[in-house]
Amino acid sequence: MRTVIGVDSGGTATRAVVADERGTVLGLGRSGTGNPTSSGAERALASLTDATVRAWTAAGRATPLVLVISGAGVRDPAFPGAPQDALAAHGLSVPVRVHGDILGAYFSATAEPDGYVLVAGTGATAGRIRGGHIDAVADGLGWLLGDHGSGFWLGREVARAVGAELGGFGPATTMTPLVLERLPPTADVLPPWRDEGLHRLLGWIYRVPPVQVSSLAPVAFAAAGDAVADELLARAGALLVRNLEAVMVDEAGPIVLTGGLLGPGAVAAAVADRWPGRCVRAADGTAGAALLALREAGLPCGAGVLQRLTAQLHREPA
Amino acid sequence: MRTVIGVDSGGTATRAVVADERGTVLGLGRSGTGNPTSSGAERALASLTDATVRAWTAAGRATPLVLVISGAGVRDPAFPGAPQDALAAHGLSVPVRVHGDILGAYFSATAEPDGYVLVAGTGATAGRIRGGHIDAVADGLGWLLGDHGSGFWLGREVARAVGAELGGFGPATTMTPLVLERLPPTADVLPPWRDEGLHRLLGWIYRVPPVQVSSLAPVAFAAAGDAVADELLARAGALLVRNLEAVMVDEAGPIVLTGGLLGPGAVAAAVADRWPGRCVRAADGTAGAALLALREAGLPCGAGVLQRLTAQLHREPA
Repeated sequence: MRTVIGVDSGGTATRAVVADERGTVLGLGRSGTGNPTSSGAERALASLTDATVRAWTAAGRATPLVLVISGAGVRDPAFPGAPQDALAAHGLSVPVRVHGDILGAYFSATAEPDGYVLVAGTGATAGRIRGGHIDAVADGLGWLLGDHGSGFWLGREVARAVGAELGGFGPATTMTPLVLERLPPTADVLPPWRDEGLHRLLGWIYRVPPVQVSSLAPVAFAAAGDAVADELLARAGALLVRNLEAVMVDEAGPIVLTGGLLGPGAVAAAVADRWPGRCVRAADGTAGAALLALREAGLPCGAGVLQRLTAQLHREPA
Repeated sequence: MRTVIGVDSGGTATRAVVADERGTVLGLGRSGTGNPTSSGAERALASLTDATVRAWTAAGRATPLVLVISGAGVRDPAFPGAPQDALAAHGLSVPVRVHGDILGAYFSATAEPDGYVLVAGTGATAGRIRGGHIDAVADGLGWLLGDHGSGFWLGREVARAVGAELGGFGPATTMTPLVLERLPPTADVLPPWRDEGLHRLLGWIYRVPPVQVSSLAPVAFAAAGDAVADELLARAGALLVRNLEAVMVDEAGPIVLTGGLLGPGAVAAAVADRWPGRCVRAADGTAGAALLALREAGLPCGAGVLQRLTAQLHREPA
């Protein structure tokens, strides 16, 4: 039996799947953060090894033809060589190939060789896919230089809107109590000219890693209906639409949406309204990583195989 | 002889001055970063101790009446108690008082009890001074939530403008070669869809501490005359003007400008044009910290004393 392994290496979770040439799922494994840029190469490698060995063990430890990693940051030079050695140390000898996360995301929802993909999780990237490969990318420049309309962007805007209300220089929003109830107390000395809530927000935001600001993004969705929150959701949607427009060269092919900001809600609706009938959603990049592994191995990787993969992945707890 | 010590605790340097009751400078000391928020309380404390002991030793080690620290972040709870103990361990027993950096900056240029101050270095804060104390503050919320028009803000905009040109989605600017020549090479694997210069920019910007992005701000000044650079300088000026307007309640009193962005150039000119004849510049907060220490000790702290302090501080290398 010919098998492959696909790994979706994300900022929150790493998911590995062992599949056979018909798209039958033989084993699944899940572990923690797999992004070497945001979490460090060592931790990402540990997550990758852990998830992969779990999946491989569940599948009966047969030697696979190839392993494909789809993930952001996996082009870090500290990363690509290491997984092969780490897996070999666990008795799993397999050639490893890496792809950007948007390719795994794209092929998790379609087997079409030409189309588009929009990822909006902590970061935001739009991609044009041609002949099964990444042909052009817009944004994906990270939280300092870009990621406009991403979870980081939205979380920071939530914090700014709440800070503006608390500081007395912005309108009231129902996001404020939602944010304040999430904030831990701060031991910092409160200056006499500063609001206590704003002081707590500052005490939190400069002590966590910057990307963790994206944890405030769900507050905007929870406050939908509030004028300030609705404006932020609309701006995020418009920025992501602009992002996709930057790579769009024709009105054909599927548009795959994935990431926490593109679940049901105003942001995904803004994108779907701009391109009616073309948007499909991918839960994560696991099925696509497996499909890419089948392609790498020269095995069938059409719509039927993908359908089988996703049906099983969504049935079983991954 | 009655003496006091004033310390200007900044992100780049810590400066200490020992002065007598007439404003005569008896000793100066200088050390590294003194901002506990951006550099850690331990390092800030070491700089403070180092600069203070140098100044005190130069002044002959007489016991001062009081020591005043003026600095951003010195309200960190890990900080205020510690300096007194650290200095005592060096044989210097002195009561320590702390003030926000904008108060030391203000009193470095004027002895008037009522006026305004605008600090635009790595961060940006505007303040209203009433009766010699901080009465209201605008912005100063740090690089994630605010500091609009600051050195961080301008540096990030320079990086974005250069990234936009290199990524093919923004106009050409003479800032691009100036930034590229500052960037070290990166070992990251270059994705086939990405420009090499943009790749280098990304490799640098996500490896340095975020506040270090402000090191690109001087590029905008160096490129003055370039349309993209001029627009950024104009936007920084407009944001800082807005910042001051938020605390401005009358058309009287001096406006003290300080920080790297408010040296000679388009940004300071935008502020001076908005309030003609009212703006005065302070080189740093050292003279003001000494003036505040004299006030704390109940000694004369009028315009004559300040003039004597600044004349000596600017003559000697601090």
